[in-house]
Amino acid sequence: RRNKILDILKSEPVFDKSSNYFNGRMERFERALAREKKLQLLRRKHNWTTDELRTASEAVGEPGPYALHESMFKITIGEQGTPEQQEKFLKPATDYKIIGCYAQTELGHGSNVRGLETTATWNPEDKTFTIHSPHLTASKWWIGSLGRTANFACVMAQLYIGGKSFGPHPFIVQVRDLKTHQPLENIHVGDIGPKFGYNTMDNGFLLFNKVKVPHFNMLGRFSRIDPQTNKYVRQGSPSLIYGTLTWVRSNIVMQAGSVLARGVTIATRYCAVRRQFQDRDAPPGEKGENPVLNYTMVQIRLLPLLAATFALHFTGKGMMHMYQENQKRMNGSGKGRESETRGAGPEETQAGSDILADLHATSCGLKSLSSSIAAEGLEVCRRACGGHGYSSFSGIGSWYADYLPTVTWEGDNFMLTQQVARYLLKSARSVLSGAKPSNETTRILSDFRSRSEIGCAFDILGSDEDLVSAFAWRASFLTFEALKHRDDNKKPWNDLLVDFYRLSKAHSQYLVVRNFYDALKHGNIGREVDATTHDVLWKLFRLWALHTLEQEGSEFFASGAASRHQISLARTNAVMKLLKEIRPHAVSLVDGWGFDDWVLDSSLGRFDGKVYEDMFHRASELNPLNGVTVDPYPENEVLFKKVEPLAKSKL
Amino acid sequence: RRNKILDILKSEPVFDKSSNYFNGRMERFERALAREKKLQLLRRKHNWTTDELRTASEAVGEPGPYALHESMFKITIGEQGTPEQQEKFLKPATDYKIIGCYAQTELGHGSNVRGLETTATWNPEDKTFTIHSPHLTASKWWIGSLGRTANFACVMAQLYIGGKSFGPHPFIVQVRDLKTHQPLENIHVGDIGPKFGYNTMDNGFLLFNKVKVPHFNMLGRFSRIDPQTNKYVRQGSPSLIYGTLTWVRSNIVMQAGSVLARGVTIATRYCAVRRQFQDRDAPPGEKGENPVLNYTMVQIRLLPLLAATFALHFTGKGMMHMYQENQKRMNGSGKGRESETRGAGPEETQAGSDILADLHATSCGLKSLSSSIAAEGLEVCRRACGGHGYSSFSGIGSWYADYLPTVTWEGDNFMLTQQVARYLLKSARSVLSGAKPSNETTRILSDFRSRSEIGCAFDILGSDEDLVSAFAWRASFLTFEALKHRDDNKKPWNDLLVDFYRLSKAHSQYLVVRNFYDALKHGNIGREVDATTHDVLWKLFRLWALHTLEQEGSEFFASGAASRHQISLARTNAVMKLLKEIRPHAVSLVDGWGFDDWVLDSSLGRFDGKVYEDMFHRASELNPLNGVTVDPYPENEVLFKKVEPLAKSKL
Repeated sequence: RRNKILDILKSEPVFDKSSNYFNGRMERFERALAREKKLQLLRRKHNWTTDELRTASEAVGEPGPYALHESMFKITIGEQGTPEQQEKFLKPATDYKIIGCYAQTELGHGSNVRGLETTATWNPEDKTFTIHSPHLTASKWWIGSLGRTANFACVMAQLYIGGKSFGPHPFIVQVRDLKTHQPLENIHVGDIGPKFGYNTMDNGFLLFNKVKVPHFNMLGRFSRIDPQTNKYVRQGSPSLIYGTLTWVRSNIVMQAGSVLARGVTIATRYCAVRRQFQDRDAPPGEKGENPVLNYTMVQIRLLPLLAATFALHFTGKGMMHMYQENQKRMNGSGKGRESETRGAGPEETQAGSDILADLHATSCGLKSLSSSIAAEGLEVCRRACGGHGYSSFSGIGSWYADYLPTVTWEGDNFMLTQQVARYLLKSARSVLSGAKPSNETTRILSDFRSRSEIGCAFDILGSDEDLVSAFAWRASFLTFEALKHRDDNKKPWNDLLVDFYRLSKAHSQYLVVRNFYDALKHGNIGREVDATTHDVLWKLFRLWALHTLEQEGSEFFASGAASRHQISLARTNAVMKLLKEIRPHAVSLVDGWGFDDWVLDSSLGRFDGKVYEDMFHRASELNPLNGVTVDPYPENEVLFKKVEPLAKSKL
Repeated sequence: RRNKILDILKSEPVFDKSSNYFNGRMERFERALAREKKLQLLRRKHNWTTDELRTASEAVGEPGPYALHESMFKITIGEQGTPEQQEKFLKPATDYKIIGCYAQTELGHGSNVRGLETTATWNPEDKTFTIHSPHLTASKWWIGSLGRTANFACVMAQLYIGGKSFGPHPFIVQVRDLKTHQPLENIHVGDIGPKFGYNTMDNGFLLFNKVKVPHFNMLGRFSRIDPQTNKYVRQGSPSLIYGTLTWVRSNIVMQAGSVLARGVTIATRYCAVRRQFQDRDAPPGEKGENPVLNYTMVQIRLLPLLAATFALHFTGKGMMHMYQENQKRMNGSGKGRESETRGAGPEETQAGSDILADLHATSCGLKSLSSSIAAEGLEVCRRACGGHGYSSFSGIGSWYADYLPTVTWEGDNFMLTQQVARYLLKSARSVLSGAKPSNETTRILSDFRSRSEIGCAFDILGSDEDLVSAFAWRASFLTFEALKHRDDNKKPWNDLLVDFYRLSKAHSQYLVVRNFYDALKHGNIGREVDATTHDVLWKLFRLWALHTLEQEGSEFFASGAASRHQISLARTNAVMKLLKEIRPHAVSLVDGWGFDDWVLDSSLGRFDGKVYEDMFHRASELNPLNGVTVDPYPENEVLFKKVEPLAKSKL
C-alpha cells in the first residue's frame, strides 16, 4: 500500500524534490502549500483514509501549512465541541471550506498554560465574549498554519465572568476573511519569521484588539456559560483531554524510532561505502582503505543508535497498546476527575491506584527520553558521515532541523521530568505506607523495598532478565533517594530538579529496556522474522541495554545494581563483542526499515551506494548558484556579472 | 579600537544585518561577496592590520568568500613557496589581483591525505606537470572560496616522476580566466551546493582533465624537481608545517571560548528576562512567575558552560604561549626532521624529548575537546531558550550551524584522539623505560608511576591544587591502562579506538583544568580584575572542574582519584552550592565578554532585555513572507494571490 501511494506521489510534478535543498523560505513555503493542496485533491480522488494521508505526508517529508488544521484544530473541536459546534465548525473544516489552527502558546508564555494573558470576557448584555490581548507578550506566537494559511483559530484564552477568572478555555475565532483572505478588523496576524527548521510551515502570531465572538463559539462540551443566568457550568469529563495529551506523547515515542531510523539508515549505508585509511594492524602489503564502518569508533556511535531505533519502536508500540487499553476502560466506566491543585496532573491525585496516572507519567518520561535520543542521535549520524554529513545532500541536516522542535514542544524535555518524579515520589509514598502494588511502577518499587535488607545480585552479562531487573533496581533506588531528600531532609523542590531529571531518565530507560525485552520475549516478533534476525534483535537488545548501563555506570554502581567489575566488563568486553557480531548485519538491518530513496532524498544514503555520482550530479547539474558568474575583485562594484539558468559542464 | 571598527561597519549600508535571517542562499552569498569587497576597501582606506581586519570580519559574523584566499592560500605560499614564487603569486594575491584557495580534500578522501587521487605527473620533455583527476572521487570538494570566487588554487596532488610516486605536494594552478572569470579549458569547477550552515561561503569542486602547469608552479621550499636531472630533491625543514597545523588548532581552542560565549551570553540574558511558573515552594500568596535562570535545572545547563567559556579562553591563551615559545626555539635551532612512517606525526619519533611533540598532541586533543564543547554547548544554550531558541531571531541557530564544521575539519574530533593516544602511549613507554621526564606529560606520568605502590588521596573538595592533581591522576591511570591493553595484551589497534577516545578526552580535560587553574593562580588576572570578580572566577574554575569530574565519575572512581563519597558530595553538594553562588553574577559575567548587540544580532540576547519587542518587530515589520496573501483552498491552483513588498500592521 505504501508503494502504491509512493508511485502516485512520484508521478506528480509538484512533489519533485530536486529543488528542495536549494530553495529559500518563500519558495519552500509556496511549494509546501502547493503540495498540501495536491495531497487533499489526491485524498479525495483516491479515497485515502487518514492513515493513508499520513503515509503520503510522511513520504513528502516536510511540515506542511495544513498540518495544524488537520490535527489540533479538528481534534480539539471534535473532542471539546458540542454536536452543534461540530456541525458548524468541524464539518466545513473537514471539507476545507475553513482552515484552522490551534492558538495556545503566547510570546511570553510557553510551558505554563495557566500564565496565558489573552482574555475572553463575558458580556452579559449582548451574550458575547470579547477576546483581547492586553500586552505585547499576550500575542499568540508559534501557532502552526496561522502565519499565512488559516482563516480560523481555536484560541485558548482566560475566561472572565463578572471580573472573576475561570482559567483558560478554548474559543473558535475567525481571523481572516473567507474570500479576500485579509485579516479581519482589529486582528493583527502574520508569520513569525524564519526558524532553525520547519520553514515550510507558517508559524504565526496573533493579536486581538477587543474582538467580539458569539456565545456559541466557546467550545462547550466540558464547560459553558448559561446565557440566562451568566453562570459558569462544568459538565462531563475533561480528563479525556489528558488522554489526548497522552496520545500525542505516545505518538512522539512511536515516531522517535522511525525518525532516528532515517538518520541511521543514511549513516550506516554511507559508512559501509566510504573508505578511509588502512587498518593500522593490516599487513604492510595490503593497499586498500578500510570501510569506516569497520572502525570500532564508528560502530560505537552508530550501532547503539541502530539498536535504539528498534528499542523505541517497540516501546512506542507498547505505549500505544497501554493507551488503547486505558481508553477502552475509561470510556466504559465514564468516570472522570478534575484537579484543582496548581500544576497537578492526574498523577498527583491517584498515584498507585490507576493505570491513567501511570500512563500519563510514562508518556511524559518517555516523550522526553525518546525525542532526546532521536534528536541527538540524528546529529551523531550526521557527524559519523564526516565532512559530507554537513552537505544538505546528506539529507540528515534538514531532517534534524525539522525534528528539533519535538524536544521542546508538547512539554519541554526538561520540564516534563518533574511530572515523572512527582508521580514516582507519590508512588513510593504509597508503597511506604503499605499499599498494595496496583501497577507496574508500584510493583518494582515494592520489590526493591522488600529487598532493602538483603540487597540484590543481577547477572547482567549472563541473563537478559537480570539485565532488565538491574534497570528497575536503579530506578527504584533513585526514587527512594529522591523521596528521602524531599520528605525527610525537606529539601526545596527547586534544589531537587537535577535529581528529578536523572530519576525520570533512569525510570524511562528502564521502560525502554523492558519494552524491548518484552517484545522479543513475549511478542509476535519470533514468528514474524527468521531465526537469524531474531537472534540479531536480541543482540541489539543487549547492546542497547549494556551501552546505556555503561554510560550511566556510576548510578548502577551506586545503587548496587551492578558491580564495578561487571560495568567494566560490559564496556571493554560485552559491548565490543556485540559491535563485532552486529556489524555484518548492520546494512541489512537498516534496509529492514524500508525507506525508499525518494523518501530519504539523500546522496549518502542511496540504496545502490552511488553516493559520489549523486553528490556530483546535484552539485554540478542542479545547483543554481553555478549559473552565476561573479566579479571577484574588490575594486569592482559588480557582484554577479552574469546569471544563467543552469551551469553546464565544460568537460 | 574594537568600537571604532564597529562604528565604521555600522555606518556602511552593505553591513546592515536586518535581512540576513530572511535571505536565501543566492542573496546571502551575493551579500557576503559585497561585504568581503567592502572590507578590503575599508582595510586599504583605514590601513587596518591583519588583526583589525579579523576583528571586523568577526563582527560581520559570517564566513565570507575571500576567507580561504586570505588564510590558507596566502599562508601556504608564504610558508612553502620560494622567494620567486612568493614574488609571482603572493604579491598579486595580497593585492587581490588574483584570488586563491587551498584545494586538498577530495570527494572520496577527507581525513587521509595520503589517499588523495589527484595526480601531478612530471613531464621531462617540456618540464611541466600534468594535473589530472583520474576518477570522479578525485574531484576536489569542499574547497572554500573556490565555488564561484577564486581564479587560482593551491592544489595538493600526488607527485609522479618516471612512474614513481613521491606523495602529495602543493601546486599553484590557475582555474579561471582573470578577465572573463570563466573556467579555463579542461577544468570543471563549481559550487558544491547548500550546506547545513556556511552558506555565505562558496565551497567548491574542481576536476582536471590533464591540465599542464610549468615547473615553476610546484611550491619549492621543501622539495623540488631538478629540471636538468629530473630528480626529486628534498630541502629545508617541513616540520615547520606541523607548526602551522598546530597554530591552526591552537586558534580553534582559543576561539572555542568566545564562540561559545556568544551562545551563553544570549541564553543567560534571556533566561534572566524570561519568567515561567512560580517556585513550587513559594508561599501561596505569591503571584509573580520566576525568572527561569533561578531554576537549578536551567543553571546546571548554563552555568558550567559559562565556566567553560573562561576555561577555554585561558587554555587557548596557554596554548598560544606554548606555541610561540616553541616557534622561537625552532627558528633558533633551525632543526627539523621528517617522518616516513605511515600516519606518523612528530609525536611518534620523539615523544618525551621534545616540546613540539607535546604541543602537537596537546593541540590535537584540545582541538577535539574544545570544539566539541563549544558546538554542543551552543545547542544546549539554544534549547535553554525554550521555544524561542528555535526562531532564527535567537541568533544561536545560524551561529551554531556555521560553527559546526569545526568539529570535523582540521582533523575530525574522533580521528584526532588517536594521535593523542599514540603520543601518550609513547610517553608512557619512555617513562617505563626509566627516561627522565622532559615535559609536562612525562612529568605527570612519572608522578603517577612513582606512586603505583602507595596510591593517592586528593582532597578534591577542599583543595584546588588537589582537584587539578586528580585530573592528572585519572589521565595517567587511563594511559597506563591503554598501554597494558596494547603492549601486554596485544589488543588490535582498532579494538582500542574507544579507549583511546576516552583517554584523549581525559588528558585534554586535565589540560583545560590545569590551564584555568594556572591562569588564576599564577597569571595576571589577579591584577586585572577586582577581588569580587577574581573570587567568582575561582568559583567558575571549581564549577567547571567538579562538574566535569562528576560527569566522568566512573573514571575518577575507577582510577582511585576520587572516592564514591567525594563524587557524590561533589554532585549533590558542591556543584549545587556553586550554582547558587554564581547565579547573582551570571549576567554581569556574560556582559564581561562585551558582545555588542549589533554583533550578536539576537532578539533574545539584547543587552536592554527588550526581547519581545524585538522579536515582534522583526516578525511583523521585516518578515517578507508577510507581504504574501495566499489562497488557502485546495481546489484553487493559485498559491500566492498577492505579493506586496512589506506587511503593514492593521492595528
